[in-house]
Amino acid sequence: MAEFRKDPITGRWVIIASQRAQRPRQLGAASPTRQDEPCPFCAGNEAMTPPELWASRDANTQANAPGWHVRVVPNKYPAVENASQWHGSSDNFYQAQNGVGAHEVIVESADHLVNIGALSEDGFANVLRAYRARMRALRTERRWRYLLLYKNQGDRAGATLEHIHSQLIALPHVPREAADELNGAQAHYLATQRCIYCAIIERATRERQRLVFGHEKFVALCPFAPRFAYETWILPRTHAAAFEESSDQDLLDCGRALHEIIARLNRALDDPPFNYFLHSAPTDDSAGPHYHWHWEILPQLSRAAGFELGSGSHINAVAPEQAAKLLRDVAL
Amino acid sequence: MAEFRKDPITGRWVIIASQRAQRPRQLGAASPTRQDEPCPFCAGNEAMTPPELWASRDANTQANAPGWHVRVVPNKYPAVENASQWHGSSDNFYQAQNGVGAHEVIVESADHLVNIGALSEDGFANVLRAYRARMRALRTERRWRYLLLYKNQGDRAGATLEHIHSQLIALPHVPREAADELNGAQAHYLATQRCIYCAIIERATRERQRLVFGHEKFVALCPFAPRFAYETWILPRTHAAAFEESSDQDLLDCGRALHEIIARLNRALDDPPFNYFLHSAPTDDSAGPHYHWHWEILPQLSRAAGFELGSGSHINAVAPEQAAKLLRDVAL
Repeated sequence: MAEFRKDPITGRWVIIASQRAQRPRQLGAASPTRQDEPCPFCAGNEAMTPPELWASRDANTQANAPGWHVRVVPNKYPAVENASQWHGSSDNFYQAQNGVGAHEVIVESADHLVNIGALSEDGFANVLRAYRARMRALRTERRWRYLLLYKNQGDRAGATLEHIHSQLIALPHVPREAADELNGAQAHYLATQRCIYCAIIERATRERQRLVFGHEKFVALCPFAPRFAYETWILPRTHAAAFEESSDQDLLDCGRALHEIIARLNRALDDPPFNYFLHSAPTDDSAGPHYHWHWEILPQLSRAAGFELGSGSHINAVAPEQAAKLLRDVAL
Repeated sequence: MAEFRKDPITGRWVIIASQRAQRPRQLGAASPTRQDEPCPFCAGNEAMTPPELWASRDANTQANAPGWHVRVVPNKYPAVENASQWHGSSDNFYQAQNGVGAHEVIVESADHLVNIGALSEDGFANVLRAYRARMRALRTERRWRYLLLYKNQGDRAGATLEHIHSQLIALPHVPREAADELNGAQAHYLATQRCIYCAIIERATRERQRLVFGHEKFVALCPFAPRFAYETWILPRTHAAAFEESSDQDLLDCGRALHEIIARLNRALDDPPFNYFLHSAPTDDSAGPHYHWHWEILPQLSRAAGFELGSGSHINAVAPEQAAKLLRDVAL
């Protein structure tokens, strides 16, 4: 069973998940993700995964059989696990809890695609429907305080299987990066009565130097203080705290924006490895007025290394104004 | 000129350093660090670096010529630069400052060694003398609030040149990771009148399950809540806030501990890529009673990816008790 542990100095939580050392790519292996074995995510190999939690399927097809387009299964090597009870082993100094949570995999194509950029706009919208469906389902369990949806695209961005997929983790606490955003956004709202993300969108749209594109419903921009070269955010123009409240039309519009930004990154940077994640409000509905859900897309062109680990700051060799210009100007 | 920029939501600082895109290994290049060109860090190639700031040299040898053992030069592609004045370009929303600081490279051998583990115990002590000398020198400039010494060992840990070297950055502010430790240590001290690191050492020594070794003057331990598999810290048993106040004898003892832990990691994990960094007190002497300098050595066996970036938490597949046992038991 996994375990949450708290560093007594900084209060930082980590997940100790010894069962993950059994994953297909062992710790430290430098080999690429291409496997000689059958791919567990390809249509026809459904028996290689745990039974599906959700799928978009053709009519008259059966669960855990071909006929699906996007399929969600439990992670076979979960970082956190659904246990009926919490228990801690805290003493005065060291705090630990069993690692309760949920860890799911969203398989984004029945075919063995290796880059999410191969999906059509509609393919992206289908994937977003799967994200929304599972987030809505997990949100009903109120012991999950935060849902984190994330993707590792490419070996050098941490993917251990190459078939396109994302992961969804439900946590019993709000993790540090999300908490930092929520606290900052709340402080700005209390001081100004405005959402800080709405202000960022308004300014990027007006100044244009960090804007990649502005669709009617979504904008893509390079943030003022990006950690990574070519870091890009996608935000809905209309204020909304939680992604999972999106309408079907919202998902079509969002799918179009994601499709376009990934096409631009792939074209401009020659299919870079990247991570993306969704920052949405915690499940307790407390963040409504001040938080604004968004995607952060982080190309992994250089490694965060000793400086970043020791300082918590990032050195970024590409100014966001320069990045936005390249991404804006690239021919699709 | 580099620039510090502050994210308006989280308050996180980044360094935008466009000049770094000219480094020998370009952004995104997947090539290994082995160069066909002459190595700028080898003896005889001193003219390939900026003039040296410090060196330990044989008698009767000249600066910037062979005869040295450890040599410190300015980083040719600095992330921060020594400017005579600060200036900001802040408005109500976005804050920026020019990237003032110092960025130096400590070349740890005149020979083309590619793993710091090849140094002898005395070789480590010589390297530590270079770290101490430069930190003492930079500490006299009171506009540098924090000095971060760090190493990237191996291509997969972010090294862009393979010849063994570390880097030293002087910053005008205390970065987030150091501030989190300082704040946590101060809170613990105010509550208990004890240094939290002394308490960690005492407990590891008593319980032994996370202790790798305990020399007379230094201990090596796996922390209770490690971010990375086989993460190890080295701490002086005697409370001290600032590394740079170490005596010559302290450096001999510390060199012996560093030599041993790196030998154990290399033997147990087959020369893993790793980062290490030194966390020492800020230059303003405010942390004396509650802070305790130490090394953190972080093997890079798996990549921090979407989950880590989106949450700020880490998933670690190896419990520290299991890691400490392996490192303790490995035959040297």
